[in-house]
Amino acid sequence: MKIIDKINQVLQSEKDQDKTFYSFEYFPPRTEQGVENLLDRIERMGMTNPLWIDVTWNAGGSTSDITLDLCSQIQTFSGLDVLMHITCTYMTRDKVLESLDRAKELGIRNLLALRGDPPRGATDWIPIENGFNYAVDLVKFIREKYGDFFCIGVAGYPEVHLSAKSREDDIKYLKEKVDAGADFIITQLFYDNNIFMKWFKDCREAGITCEIIPGILPILGYDRFQRTIQFCKTIVPPEVSESLEPIKADDEEVRKYGIDFGVRQCRDFIDKGFRFLHFYTMNLERSVIEIIKGLGILDSQRDLPFKKSSKRSKEDVRPIFWAIKPKSYIARTQEWDEFPNGRWGVSRSAAFGECEQYYLLQKKINCNFEELKKLWGEQVLNFNDIITVFVKFLQGKIRRYPFSEGSLQPETDTIMDPLIKLNQSKLFTINSQPKVNGAPSTDPKYGWGPKYGYVFQKAYYEFFIPQELLEPLVLYLEKHPMITYQAINAAGVERLNVDKDDVNAVTWGVFKGKEVVQPTVVDHKAFVIWKDEIFLQWVDPWAVIYPQESPSFAFLKRCHETLYLVNVVHNDFINGDLDQVLLGFVEENRALIDSL
Amino acid sequence: MKIIDKINQVLQSEKDQDKTFYSFEYFPPRTEQGVENLLDRIERMGMTNPLWIDVTWNAGGSTSDITLDLCSQIQTFSGLDVLMHITCTYMTRDKVLESLDRAKELGIRNLLALRGDPPRGATDWIPIENGFNYAVDLVKFIREKYGDFFCIGVAGYPEVHLSAKSREDDIKYLKEKVDAGADFIITQLFYDNNIFMKWFKDCREAGITCEIIPGILPILGYDRFQRTIQFCKTIVPPEVSESLEPIKADDEEVRKYGIDFGVRQCRDFIDKGFRFLHFYTMNLERSVIEIIKGLGILDSQRDLPFKKSSKRSKEDVRPIFWAIKPKSYIARTQEWDEFPNGRWGVSRSAAFGECEQYYLLQKKINCNFEELKKLWGEQVLNFNDIITVFVKFLQGKIRRYPFSEGSLQPETDTIMDPLIKLNQSKLFTINSQPKVNGAPSTDPKYGWGPKYGYVFQKAYYEFFIPQELLEPLVLYLEKHPMITYQAINAAGVERLNVDKDDVNAVTWGVFKGKEVVQPTVVDHKAFVIWKDEIFLQWVDPWAVIYPQESPSFAFLKRCHETLYLVNVVHNDFINGDLDQVLLGFVEENRALIDSL
Repeated sequence: MKIIDKINQVLQSEKDQDKTFYSFEYFPPRTEQGVENLLDRIERMGMTNPLWIDVTWNAGGSTSDITLDLCSQIQTFSGLDVLMHITCTYMTRDKVLESLDRAKELGIRNLLALRGDPPRGATDWIPIENGFNYAVDLVKFIREKYGDFFCIGVAGYPEVHLSAKSREDDIKYLKEKVDAGADFIITQLFYDNNIFMKWFKDCREAGITCEIIPGILPILGYDRFQRTIQFCKTIVPPEVSESLEPIKADDEEVRKYGIDFGVRQCRDFIDKGFRFLHFYTMNLERSVIEIIKGLGILDSQRDLPFKKSSKRSKEDVRPIFWAIKPKSYIARTQEWDEFPNGRWGVSRSAAFGECEQYYLLQKKINCNFEELKKLWGEQVLNFNDIITVFVKFLQGKIRRYPFSEGSLQPETDTIMDPLIKLNQSKLFTINSQPKVNGAPSTDPKYGWGPKYGYVFQKAYYEFFIPQELLEPLVLYLEKHPMITYQAINAAGVERLNVDKDDVNAVTWGVFKGKEVVQPTVVDHKAFVIWKDEIFLQWVDPWAVIYPQESPSFAFLKRCHETLYLVNVVHNDFINGDLDQVLLGFVEENRALIDSL
Repeated sequence: MKIIDKINQVLQSEKDQDKTFYSFEYFPPRTEQGVENLLDRIERMGMTNPLWIDVTWNAGGSTSDITLDLCSQIQTFSGLDVLMHITCTYMTRDKVLESLDRAKELGIRNLLALRGDPPRGATDWIPIENGFNYAVDLVKFIREKYGDFFCIGVAGYPEVHLSAKSREDDIKYLKEKVDAGADFIITQLFYDNNIFMKWFKDCREAGITCEIIPGILPILGYDRFQRTIQFCKTIVPPEVSESLEPIKADDEEVRKYGIDFGVRQCRDFIDKGFRFLHFYTMNLERSVIEIIKGLGILDSQRDLPFKKSSKRSKEDVRPIFWAIKPKSYIARTQEWDEFPNGRWGVSRSAAFGECEQYYLLQKKINCNFEELKKLWGEQVLNFNDIITVFVKFLQGKIRRYPFSEGSLQPETDTIMDPLIKLNQSKLFTINSQPKVNGAPSTDPKYGWGPKYGYVFQKAYYEFFIPQELLEPLVLYLEKHPMITYQAINAAGVERLNVDKDDVNAVTWGVFKGKEVVQPTVVDHKAFVIWKDEIFLQWVDPWAVIYPQESPSFAFLKRCHETLYLVNVVHNDFINGDLDQVLLGFVEENRALIDSL
C-alpha cells in the first residue's frame, strides 16, 4: 500500500484521532548472518504495527541488491509496508531505471528519494555523468517515468543541509522537491525540538503543506552518539551534554537516559499535534521500543493471529500447519489473490503451489553444515538424540531446528512443561496452541482483532510419533469424544476420525457488530499437502548435513519413512485439557515408549 | 424429502445405530380455531424432531382440502416432512389426479395410500365408478402417473384386515401392494406385541422385505379406549383389561397406565431391534411425548436456532428480526433456493419478497374483530393502553398480540422481570434474547446443533419507543462502548452506530471438528425491510379492528407514524448485562417517561 494513502487515512479517520503512528528505519547488514538476524528483528518489531519500515540504500556497493532483496522479502513475508531508499550516488539514469523497474516488479510502492552521501573517499558531492545532481531531479525523473505508481518521500533538514547556501535556500529547495512530486517529508535527526519547530514554521510559511515527519535517533550509547553528532554536525542542547557527561562510562545509564530523553522529545511532538514519528533504529531494537512504550503508543494489537502478506488485504483464513513456517505458506500461496469474503472456501479449491522459491531462501540460511551439526547433533543415532534437539529448541538453547522457520510463539510458554514431557516421551511436537476461552481481543498474549471483542482457541498439538505408537494412540483417543485427530505417514497411510471435507476452526474471534472471524483452521486437504513439506525436513535440512553413508543419515531417513505425523484438536475449549489427555497417553504406554 | 430416503439413511448410517425414530399422525380438525391450535401443537411436537408427521384424509368431506392445506403449511413453515394420507373412498381417478397434482405442486413428496373406510352410512366397502377398489390399485395408479416422484407408504394389519378372507390372503395382498411400488408399511394399531411379531415373521417369510413400522395408539382414556377397540375389533391382552378395570373411573390414573403400558410396548420393539415407531396422536400431545420421554428417545435437539423450511436444506443463516414471525420470513424468502456454503452473503443480495401470501394466512386467523378487541382492548387511547396489551402478552394472559405469529419463546422466561419493567416504561419490546456464554449444544433451553459443541448468544432487545425517548436513548447508549444499536421510524429516519454493511452474528455455535456456525444475525439491510413489515402491524391487524373515525384508530395510527423501532445488541456476551443497561436508561429518564 502507498504510504501517502495510509497517512491520509490516518489524518481523515475519526476513529484514530488520538493515535500516534511510528515508522522504523534499518540499514542492510554486511553479512548473511546479519541479514538473517535483521529479518528476525524486523519481524519482532513489525508486531508493534509500524506504519511502515524503510531500508537505506548504499549505492554502488553490493548492498543495493541487498536493499532490494530485503525490501521485497519484508514486504512479502512480514506483511509490512516498505519504503525503499534510493539515492543519486553512483547512479546513472539507466541504473535508476533498472533498480526501480525491479522494485516495481517486486511490488514495492514507496521510495525515499535522496541525493545521498558523496562517493566514498570524497568529502564533497561529485555528480556522475548521466546521473542526478540533486534529489529534486530524481523525484522529477521518477514521476516522469512511473507517474503515480510510487509514493515518494524526501528528506528535510531542520538544521539546514550542510551543503546549502542558506537557510532560505534550503527550504526553497525542499519546496521544489515537493512541487516536483514528493508526497511527504522525513527529517534528518536533531535533538533540539525548538530548532525543529522554527524550521517547521518556516516550511509551512514557505508553502510546504505536506506531512512533515520528525526523524528521531535515540541516544544509544555515548561513543556512538558522539560519532553521530560529529559526523552530522548536529546541535546538542546543553541539557543533554551535561546529563551525559557524568554517566558517559556507564553504557546502561546512557541508554536509560537516551530512552528517557527520547520519550520527552517525542512527547513534545505528540503534545504539539504531530501524528507521525520516524525512528532511526540503527538496526537495534530495545531503545526504540522502550521509547514507544514510554509514550504509551505501543500498538501490539494484531489484526489476525498471523501477519498477512501486505499484498493480500482480503486474506483472513489459514491452515494452522504453516503457523510454524509462515514464509513457506506465503511462498506456496502467493498466486492466491482472490479471497472473496475472506473465505477459506476458495483457497480450498486452489492447489497449493510448490515451495521451491522458498527453499532457495532457506538453503541460503542453512548452508553451513558444520554449524548446523553443532545445533542439531554431531550424530543422530536414536530417538534419544532426537529428543535432545527437540527439547533444546523448546528450552531456547538452540534458536533454530529443522522444523520451523523461527523461534517459538510466545504463547507456547504456558504449555512448556507438558511440551517437554511429551517430547521426552517420543511425541516430537512441532506445533501447538493452548486453549483460550474468551480472552479480550486486547490481551497481550492471545489477543488479536479490533478492540471490542473476545478471542478463542481450541487446544492443538501436532507431533511425530514412532509408528509403534500409532495404534495405541488411536485406541486411546477414541475414548475422548471431544477430540478430533488425523495421523499420516510420509507414504500417505492415514488414520483419522474427521470427515475429509470438514474444516475445523481452531482460532476464532467475536467482535462488536461483526460476524465471527475464524482465521485459523485444521482441515484434511491442507494437512495432506503439509505432510509432504514437513516430512521432507527430516532429510533436508537435517539428514543432509551428515554424509550419505553415515548412521546419522540412515537413522534420520528411517524417521522420514516410518514416523507418523499426528494432529490433535481438543474441541472442548471450555472444559477440555489436552495436556492431561496426552500426558495420560504416555503414562498408560510408558513401557512401550521406553522400549522404542 | 422422501421418507424412504430418510429411512434408508437411518438404516445405513453408522452414527445413529442406537437411535430410535418416531413419527406422529394427526387428523384435520373441523373448525378454524381447531386448525390453528393443531398447527401450534404440531409446531411444539415438531421440536422433538419426528422423522415425519402425517395427516389423515377424509375424502368427500370439506376436510380433504384441509388435509392438503395443512400438509402444505406444515411442510413449508414447520420444516417437517409430511406424509399425506390419500384414500379411495369417494375418489374417482380424476379426483385422485387432481389432488395429487395439487400435492405435487405444493411440494409434498410422501403419500400413505389407503383404501379408507366405507362411505358414510355404509358398513361394507362400496366401490365408486371410475374409482379404486383396493389400495393396491391406488398404488399402481400413483406409480403409473407419477413415477418415482412420491414415496408411498401402505397399511399393514397385524390382526388381519376385517374384510380379508384369511390371514394368508391378507399378507399376500400386502405383498401385492409392496410389489406394486409401496416403499414401506405402517401397521394398524394393536396392543399385543406377540400377535404383531407372529404376523411380522409371516410377512418376512412371504417375501415382504421393506421396513414395517409398528403403529402405536396409546391408551388415552377409558371410554375412548373402549370405543376404539370396539370399532377396530382390536384384541386386548388380559393384563390390560385387568389393570384398567379398577382405575377406569380415574382419568388421570388411566392415562398414567396408558403411558406406562406404551413405554413397555415400545421398549419391547426397541429391544427387538425396531428402529421406527409410528404414533397415532389423536391430535393430543401429552401421552405420546411422555412415552417417548419414558423410552429415553426424546430428541429435542435443534439443528439450528430456527426450524428451517424442509425444502431449503442449505439455509443456515437468518436475520433475528423475523424470529417472531418465522412464517412471514419463509413466505418472503421462499424463492431463495440458493444458499451456497449456507452463507448469508447471497441472501443479502437477493431482494426480500412481498409478504402477501402470508397476509392471507394471517387474515384468516385474525378475521374476528370483536374477539380481537377482547384481547387487544376495547379502546386504545394512550401509551398505558399499549402497556396493558404488551404486558398481558408477556404474562401469557393473551395468546396472541399484533406483533408476533405465535407465543413467546421458552427462553424468554429468564428475562421476564426486566421485560415487564421495560414495557411498563414505554419500551415496547417485540423481540429479545438473553446472552449465552457457552451453553452445551444439548442444553434443553438454549442448545442446538450437533451433540459435541457449545452455543453462544449476544443479548438482544428490539422495541418501539415514543419519539421523545430517541435522543436520550442514543446519548445514553453511546456511553456503552460494547453496545451496537439501530433506530428507525416508519418514514425511514435513522440513528445508528453500526456500519451499514456490517453483519453482526448474535447466535453462533462451536462444534467438534467444524467451522463456527452463525445462524442468527443482525444487519442493517434486513432491518430496513423488516421495519416496513413490523410498523404496519400497528395499523393492520391492530388499528383496523376499530372504526376508522374512532380515537383508538387515530391513536394507533399515530403510533405507527411517530414511534421509533430500536434494536440493541450487547456485544459483550461474557460480562455484559443488557437488562441492567436498559433498566438504567429508564431509571435515568423516569420523569420524561412518565410525562409521555
